Amino acid sequence: MTYNQLYETILAKKSYLCVGLDTDLSKIPPHLLKTEDPIFEFNKAIIDATAPFCVAYKPNTAFYECYGVKGWVSLSKTIDYLNKNYPNHFTIADAKRGDIGNTSSMYAKAFFEEMNFDSVTIAPYMGEDSVKPFLGFKGKWAILLALTSNAGSKDFQELQIENQIEKLYERTLKTAQNWGNHENLMFVTGATKAQEFTNIRKIAPKNFLLVPGVGAQGGSLADVSKFGMNDHCGLLVNSSRAIIYASNNVDFAKIAGEEAKKVQKEMAIYL
Amino acid sequence: MTYNQLYETILAKKSYLCVGLDTDLSKIPPHLLKTEDPIFEFNKAIIDATAPFCVAYKPNTAFYECYGVKGWVSLSKTIDYLNKNYPNHFTIADAKRGDIGNTSSMYAKAFFEEMNFDSVTIAPYMGEDSVKPFLGFKGKWAILLALTSNAGSKDFQELQIENQIEKLYERTLKTAQNWGNHENLMFVTGATKAQEFTNIRKIAPKNFLLVPGVGAQGGSLADVSKFGMNDHCGLLVNSSRAIIYASNNVDFAKIAGEEAKKVQKEMAIYL
Repeated sequence: MTYNQLYETILAKKSYLCVGLDTDLSKIPPHLLKTEDPIFEFNKAIIDATAPFCVAYKPNTAFYECYGVKGWVSLSKTIDYLNKNYPNHFTIADAKRGDIGNTSSMYAKAFFEEMNFDSVTIAPYMGEDSVKPFLGFKGKWAILLALTSNAGSKDFQELQIENQIEKLYERTLKTAQNWGNHENLMFVTGATKAQEFTNIRKIAPKNFLLVPGVGAQGGSLADVSKFGMNDHCGLLVNSSRAIIYASNNVDFAKIAGEEAKKVQKEMAIYL
Repeated sequence: MTYNQLYETILAKKSYLCVGLDTDLSKIPPHLLKTEDPIFEFNKAIIDATAPFCVAYKPNTAFYECYGVKGWVSLSKTIDYLNKNYPNHFTIADAKRGDIGNTSSMYAKAFFEEMNFDSVTIAPYMGEDSVKPFLGFKGKWAILLALTSNAGSKDFQELQIENQIEKLYERTLKTAQNWGNHENLMFVTGATKAQEFTNIRKIAPKNFLLVPGVGAQGGSLADVSKFGMNDHCGLLVNSSRAIIYASNNVDFAKIAGEEAKKVQKEMAIYL
């Protein structure tokens, strides 16, 4: 998917919502546990119910890997279902990968070719050769961690570097601009750090920002939108738990759809 | 496996060699491609041939994920084979994972419970809550990236932080000492940075160091051993390509075993 295609989808749907498919067997409705692949059944129902209100889906690979081969099968079926039935939705493998160059190429192959995701999240610690292999695929995106939404983000990301001229996360944003551009590179910037978004936009004015942390983690959609939006929207705001676990009764998908719709309606105001 | 058990194994085998199972279908002997699971067949033969000369095995997950579900099956079979036949060898899932706390817990479950690896490599960028979930499993280890062997390590890891008092990788080593100890935490320190090992040992005197970069990447085993060894050896030196791809003829396993033996003999001198 290109930058302009993503922007057009956002305009058409009046939404920049990404639904996080962090599917956990201990949290999904009990009646699904009797099916052959409860994770996939849950995802399918959530996707069908929320698709009108969101522009992207983001399964976090940890929630699939923890079930071994079976979980990997559920993830595969989920991305296949999305690509077949919702080809205009942007797909994100939230995998936070990164390794030396030749090994990162294998991860790129895994997520862009073997599974055909539109994008994958990447950890920056290993530097240029760990990120670049994700930038050479037409229509595919690397989404680099910059300033994350969790408490631990203060440990390294907010450290002052080189005579206090900037924080590490700012250097990450700047350095990565030399590796890619707004058409193949996005950044993860947590909603819990809305006060930093003005600053982030000075360094990365055009790039899309993937923003987790709205909902269960406490970030404000209003603040993120006010300080983070650019002239092509430039935001994909993720919500996982607050939408997908809004109910764990038989009507869970309907309720999830209603929650997604609420968020979409708020987004329509900000757009 | 405990710190002392690992040290005793090293003494008994006169080896601190870790064999990296970076198994690539385009590099393995062609005759294996006719088998049902060429990756597992290759791994099994390499393991049987090298086991007398090494103390650890390290499959890099990228090489398995790039084949999708099938690759995940091969990885599963490989760790099961190791646990069943070589329970005294230390196993490392080279996965470089890391996410917000509750998600990192899922990764810990994936590698420590679902697959029963002894350890997993972790990326530090997301800080404390991304690392801690890996430290609460008895006999299991987190191996945190500190100073990696690749060119990109200069981009962030070697940045001076907070008034030039230290580099980012040094801060990573120091901060992580507050999260774990030498009995549940190791560090990745690349062999290509042997000049930094004296410094690394000042900050992390007791922790084991997992050292990639010897062999194909050009690091020196002699230098790593000279500057990195502590009174419990404290080193696991990894070699992947130089051993597992030493030959791609029908005798590939025998040749790999001979290469591993050469490294082991050199290690015996340094111990």
